[in-house]
Amino acid sequence: MAPNLDSFFKTVDSNTDAFIERLRKAVAIPSVSAEDERRPDVVKMGMFLKSQLDGLGAHMEARPLGKQPGKEHLELPPAIIGRYPAKKDESKRTILVYGHYDVQPANLSDGWNTEPFELTVDDKGRMYGRGSTDDKGPVLGWVNVIESHQKAGVEFPVNLLMCFEGMEEYGSEGLDDFIIEECKPGKFFEDADAVCISDNYWLGTEKPCLTYGLRGCSYYSIEIKGPGQDLHSGVFGGTAQEPMTDLMRVMATLVDGNGKILIPGINELVAPLSKEEQSLYKDIAFTMDNLYESLGSTTGIFPDKESTLMGRWRYPSLSIHGVEGAFSAPGAKTVIPAKVTGKFSIRTVPDMEPPEVDKLVYSHVQQAFEHLGSKNTMKCWLQHSGKWWVASPKHWNFTAAAKAVERVWKTKPDLTREGGSIPVTLTFEQATGKNVLLLPMGSSTDAAHSVNEKLDKRNYIEGIKLLGAYLHYVAEEPMKAAAL
Amino acid sequence: MAPNLDSFFKTVDSNTDAFIERLRKAVAIPSVSAEDERRPDVVKMGMFLKSQLDGLGAHMEARPLGKQPGKEHLELPPAIIGRYPAKKDESKRTILVYGHYDVQPANLSDGWNTEPFELTVDDKGRMYGRGSTDDKGPVLGWVNVIESHQKAGVEFPVNLLMCFEGMEEYGSEGLDDFIIEECKPGKFFEDADAVCISDNYWLGTEKPCLTYGLRGCSYYSIEIKGPGQDLHSGVFGGTAQEPMTDLMRVMATLVDGNGKILIPGINELVAPLSKEEQSLYKDIAFTMDNLYESLGSTTGIFPDKESTLMGRWRYPSLSIHGVEGAFSAPGAKTVIPAKVTGKFSIRTVPDMEPPEVDKLVYSHVQQAFEHLGSKNTMKCWLQHSGKWWVASPKHWNFTAAAKAVERVWKTKPDLTREGGSIPVTLTFEQATGKNVLLLPMGSSTDAAHSVNEKLDKRNYIEGIKLLGAYLHYVAEEPMKAAAL
Repeated sequence: MAPNLDSFFKTVDSNTDAFIERLRKAVAIPSVSAEDERRPDVVKMGMFLKSQLDGLGAHMEARPLGKQPGKEHLELPPAIIGRYPAKKDESKRTILVYGHYDVQPANLSDGWNTEPFELTVDDKGRMYGRGSTDDKGPVLGWVNVIESHQKAGVEFPVNLLMCFEGMEEYGSEGLDDFIIEECKPGKFFEDADAVCISDNYWLGTEKPCLTYGLRGCSYYSIEIKGPGQDLHSGVFGGTAQEPMTDLMRVMATLVDGNGKILIPGINELVAPLSKEEQSLYKDIAFTMDNLYESLGSTTGIFPDKESTLMGRWRYPSLSIHGVEGAFSAPGAKTVIPAKVTGKFSIRTVPDMEPPEVDKLVYSHVQQAFEHLGSKNTMKCWLQHSGKWWVASPKHWNFTAAAKAVERVWKTKPDLTREGGSIPVTLTFEQATGKNVLLLPMGSSTDAAHSVNEKLDKRNYIEGIKLLGAYLHYVAEEPMKAAAL
Repeated sequence: MAPNLDSFFKTVDSNTDAFIERLRKAVAIPSVSAEDERRPDVVKMGMFLKSQLDGLGAHMEARPLGKQPGKEHLELPPAIIGRYPAKKDESKRTILVYGHYDVQPANLSDGWNTEPFELTVDDKGRMYGRGSTDDKGPVLGWVNVIESHQKAGVEFPVNLLMCFEGMEEYGSEGLDDFIIEECKPGKFFEDADAVCISDNYWLGTEKPCLTYGLRGCSYYSIEIKGPGQDLHSGVFGGTAQEPMTDLMRVMATLVDGNGKILIPGINELVAPLSKEEQSLYKDIAFTMDNLYESLGSTTGIFPDKESTLMGRWRYPSLSIHGVEGAFSAPGAKTVIPAKVTGKFSIRTVPDMEPPEVDKLVYSHVQQAFEHLGSKNTMKCWLQHSGKWWVASPKHWNFTAAAKAVERVWKTKPDLTREGGSIPVTLTFEQATGKNVLLLPMGSSTDAAHSVNEKLDKRNYIEGIKLLGAYLHYVAEEPMKAAAL
């Protein structure tokens, strides 16, 4: 099946150098969305991407997203959207793909071994550079797929809709409303039959995966305040009730050291584990050594693979991230902070409805604080919340991707979920009403968001083949396949 | 008694403008010891002070203190030491006075109503400016005392030894060893009969005080670490034991909301309250409204003045200052910090021996951590420790100062202790073996270390009279008075 793939694959191989060069050009643009002064670089990167696709004959548009909320002196970088071929072929399926062209901040002084904005390929084929794997490699993957088809003279198997954003690393400001709008009848994305997002990673380093679930995230703040201003502990210690003392005592009631959430009612919201689901975990290519390697320690909660994967994917977790307003620098400062804000978040899973979680959190925190009998005042609120997402891995979108993996990587992919959230996933699912697939290119050791981010040359080149093959297998899936 | 005081007082009054002008010049030199780039200004301020005293015929020396530990590219500002009159009069007592010529950082943008390094006098006689009360006003007080004696033609009543440092706001780097050395036989400070430090404040705004006690401070860190690097809570939440969770649970065991230290054994070290001591507190000029005003709230622990003053002065307290290594910025970040360091300190009082306190702290923290059964590792250590100090207020040094207060302010001073520590106090006591008196010039509303620091003109001018009168009454105290 998919008979044209061989010549497409050969063309990808013979254009390896050009594709790496394209990635080098992209990495050289420091499109850091979190840094105001880099905003022109973010826009430049969006325009670079658009020009590459314009050059291949795609219909491309740079859509303004307005001012940045809270930083109204800044324009949001545009959404780069497009269609290839430029004119729709009504006989073919339409696949909407998403990626982002902005990157996390990076400075050589953070501990990088090489200049973060210079793609540096070592003798093992590791291509170091900020954005190499997150998400410039995958985004350029789609560009390279189109170019390889043209060079190989192979007909493009689907209608490709593209949505590339420049604010993903800063909360995808402005994107949700844009997607919802453009998925309406008569709009740009109205005819998407399925969605494919390449913006995550394999579970390990050797075996590809398809991802069908993500945990949600509800992020809370607990603010406790008392005095009118910060106090000197020499003068006021022993005479004033200290907000930091209260906060420590409230935060200590949230979770135990083994990750058990102590907020009453939370664990009862979790969908029970079926025998069938339980059996899925044992075959996943993952070992405790994988965990220990990525942790950089053996301080895991569970001794076995299955519990660990379930702890990451299908059970909720609660992490305490820090305290705002207290002394956080090195050294010693004898301050009594007047107002402290503890931050924690809960990773949510089916069937936890976020409003229900909020209610349980507020009620518990309120009770824990009241229990202290403090004269200080406490406020607990939700900073942001994104719901969990679980798709059907039996949909043709996944079946096609699985075939593509087998063809390119000669192995069946693991079907995985992820512990983190990619909020745009749920937005696409809700806005299109169609199946969404996460099809990662990079591996677990790529250090996205960290120093020395890299993408292996092998993952890049085979990844281009994978994205292309996926489109071919999508084209072959029966048109009336049940959408589970 | 002290018959020459009237003409001295009159001279002080008639030189008011010149004395304010001198303070204006001093405030204009931004001698911020904590900011490397201001180091030349700190030195400039030391030299200004020396030149003022040189001009009055004192014998002055600028003594180098070496490189700054940890910042070896910086010279410490010199200790400005001196003697007046330049030649010792063997028939007179010798009083060693201490002050500091460096100041806390200050920027208009911090919320100052006026330029912090321009002395600005309002119509109520409040003289705003960084260092006005802490400690340039008191230091120049001694200069003004000498000048006023010369102008009044009044014989100087004592031998005055002076020790002015330029690193007080940055931990008095280098000073302890210097003092200990210079108090040895044959050295500069060898013949001090008593010590007077003017670097603290009245308890309120109307009544002067003499201070005979300070709490000590033992500052601890609890470091808990696990993973090799910070983790993403989406990926690792629910699979790794989190150091921040452990830290919250350990820190919650240290103290309760009413300031009761929960570390076993600590409270048992405190000297019992005698009936005599208990009776001292009710007459102190202090009200609960004073507390609430300085707190900016009514979140005090105790409802009554006596318990509040005892809570500040004679009982220990424990404050949690913050966490290093966790997320401390505004906003939301879903990090699992790999290594977090909680900071807390205990204010110590008689008879708590610091090594004994350390032992109890280490043992409790160790037990609290072990109780968690965590795989993370914990380390608890002392960052720094300064012992409490209590002098005898019955010594002639205090008796003289009390007479001076009555003469200048027409009221008996409160005998107070302070909750904070001024470590150099104990150093002087130990190095000289003599009685040390804290004789404040400014009032409780002066906002030392804060924005809009000020010294009231009245406190400055009457304060100069007080310092001079104190020296006259010192000269009159019987030479063989018992040193209690």
